[in-house]
Amino acid sequence: MTDVVRQIPSISGAAARRVLQAAIAAAEAAEQPSAIAVVDASGNLSAFARLDGAALQAAQLAQDKAYTAAGFGLPSGQWHEFLQQDAPLATGAPTGIDRFVPFGGGLPLSVAGQVVGGIGVSGGHWSGDDQIAQAGAAAIEAAQ
Amino acid sequence: MTDVVRQIPSISGAAARRVLQAAIAAAEAAEQPSAIAVVDASGNLSAFARLDGAALQAAQLAQDKAYTAAGFGLPSGQWHEFLQQDAPLATGAPTGIDRFVPFGGGLPLSVAGQVVGGIGVSGGHWSGDDQIAQAGAAAIEAAQ
Amino acid sequence: MTDVVRQIPSISGAAARRVLQAAIAAAEAAEQPSAIAVVDASGNLSAFARLDGAALQAAQLAQDKAYTAAGFGLPSGQWHEFLQQDAPLATGAPTGIDRFVPFGGGLPLSVAGQVVGGIGVSGGHWSGDDQIAQAGAAAIEAAQ
Amino acid sequence: MTDVVRQIPSISGAAARRVLQAAIAAAEAAEQPSAIAVVDASGNLSAFARLDGAALQAAQLAQDKAYTAAGFGLPSGQWHEFLQQDAPLATGAPTGIDRFVPFGGGLPLSVAGQVVGGIGVSGGHWSGDDQIAQAGAAAIEAAQ
Repeated sequence: MTDVVRQIPSISGAAARRVLQAAIAAAEAAEQPSAIAVVDASGNLSAFARLDGAALQAAQLAQDKAYTAAGFGLPSGQWHEFLQQDAPLATGAPTGIDRFVPFGGGLPLSVAGQVVGGIGVSGGHWSGDDQIAQAGAAAIEAAQ
Repeated sequence: MTDVVRQIPSISGAAARRVLQAAIAAAEAAEQPSAIAVVDASGNLSAFARLDGAALQAAQLAQDKAYTAAGFGLPSGQWHEFLQQDAPLATGAPTGIDRFVPFGGGLPLSVAGQVVGGIGVSGGHWSGDDQIAQAGAAAIEAAQ
Repeated sequence: MTDVVRQIPSISGAAARRVLQAAIAAAEAAEQPSAIAVVDASGNLSAFARLDGAALQAAQLAQDKAYTAAGFGLPSGQWHEFLQQDAPLATGAPTGIDRFVPFGGGLPLSVAGQVVGGIGVSGGHWSGDDQIAQAGAAAIEAAQ
Repeated sequence: MTDVVRQIPSISGAAARRVLQAAIAAAEAAEQPSAIAVVDASGNLSAFARLDGAALQAAQLAQDKAYTAAGFGLPSGQWHEFLQQDAPLATGAPTGIDRFVPFGGGLPLSVAGQVVGGIGVSGGHWSGDDQIAQAGAAAIEAAQ
């Protein structure tokens, strides 16, 4: 029976809300109105907030960055470098992969080396979004 | 110039998160794993949480209940009675109106008699969802 | 840290393919060209086959039946009875819940009383689809 | 209570129709069959017209240009320059951001320095679309 079921380690709802809260605090400290999304290991939305003044587009972008990061287990911002080195992928990945965001602001959430979800932030430039996402991710790394 | 701009009173992000938190507490007290969504006066998602164990479908349903309630300024649960009395609407509204959920669990959020957003809850039967939504809505009514 | 991660018991890929194989065998024995889908506990597609001659629509229906069953943890065929007893739900669920299929052919896949996925079959009448789905589900129940 | 509700300054319906009318006049003067859309501050469609002979695609493009401009608070035509200077964004923004149109024809509508909506025009080349959009935007700037 052991091979019938596998256990998917996934961020709990409570932890997802802590990640969200930490990212909100970082966005407020940076005075950067942002949308912030946390998805579980299976890509399903777990927690979300949109701060007053965030761009309308930020809600979708934050969710898709979180999905991009959780699904591949990589920061969304790493994709640009990968695509630079692989012309067919560079041509086709952005259009061929649903909900793919290949710039910063999406980070996998990991516990003990295993991806358990993802966080996505959209508000300012992607470099700043990345820092807010890191503040969110740190909330569960610190808890371990 | 006064007629160029109108002010749309909308729930603030901070208040949306308080509504969410109150609804989470009610769902936990009722031991009902639920998804909970808060949208602003324009229907845009403002805050969201999915509790562990909620049905996969609950995430979409909660958002659409909130949208249904905020958009029409009516509890989603009132629509069944309206549809009963209007055969053409009964035939066409559920399929003809995008994101329309005509059963309980969605409530408009009002301040001083004005709709400023909506909350949607999906987890158990819609009658229980409605009670959790009411607990969320009470969080800003109490604040006034 | 225990509250940071939760384990989601989910059907393994190998077991999903055994379920699929058993359902294919049942569909072939019944001479019923069918599409068969197995999703994991989070609703993501795990295994799929479309037999020659199956209706074009069957591919989508099989996936959505599996999703309906896994998401709610109920056979899709039970919904008709539920809807009979709940007029608001009867009006709104079929159109208001994305990917909702309230007739037979979708079954949750359970191990030790826990839902770990879902199977959906579409090919003939839903009553026959249900029997093929049961043959699939039996493949992992037998293994326990 | 002040933090429960925020006021979103948004273009009134009457003003949106004046913007539309001015853009229609400009499109007719330029003999450029166009679709013209005005959205409010939350991205919802407020006024729209498609002139006889406009391309079928123009209806969608005009709406998405207006949304792009209102959501980010920037002329859609400015994005090309931004993307030139930011390779990751250049790769991912056009495909990763829903309804994103990074060429001319979309303008934010501002009153007293605040974005209250957006106008999008699609008919001819984007440079001409931009001029028609400017004629529309001028209708409310003049009113102030």
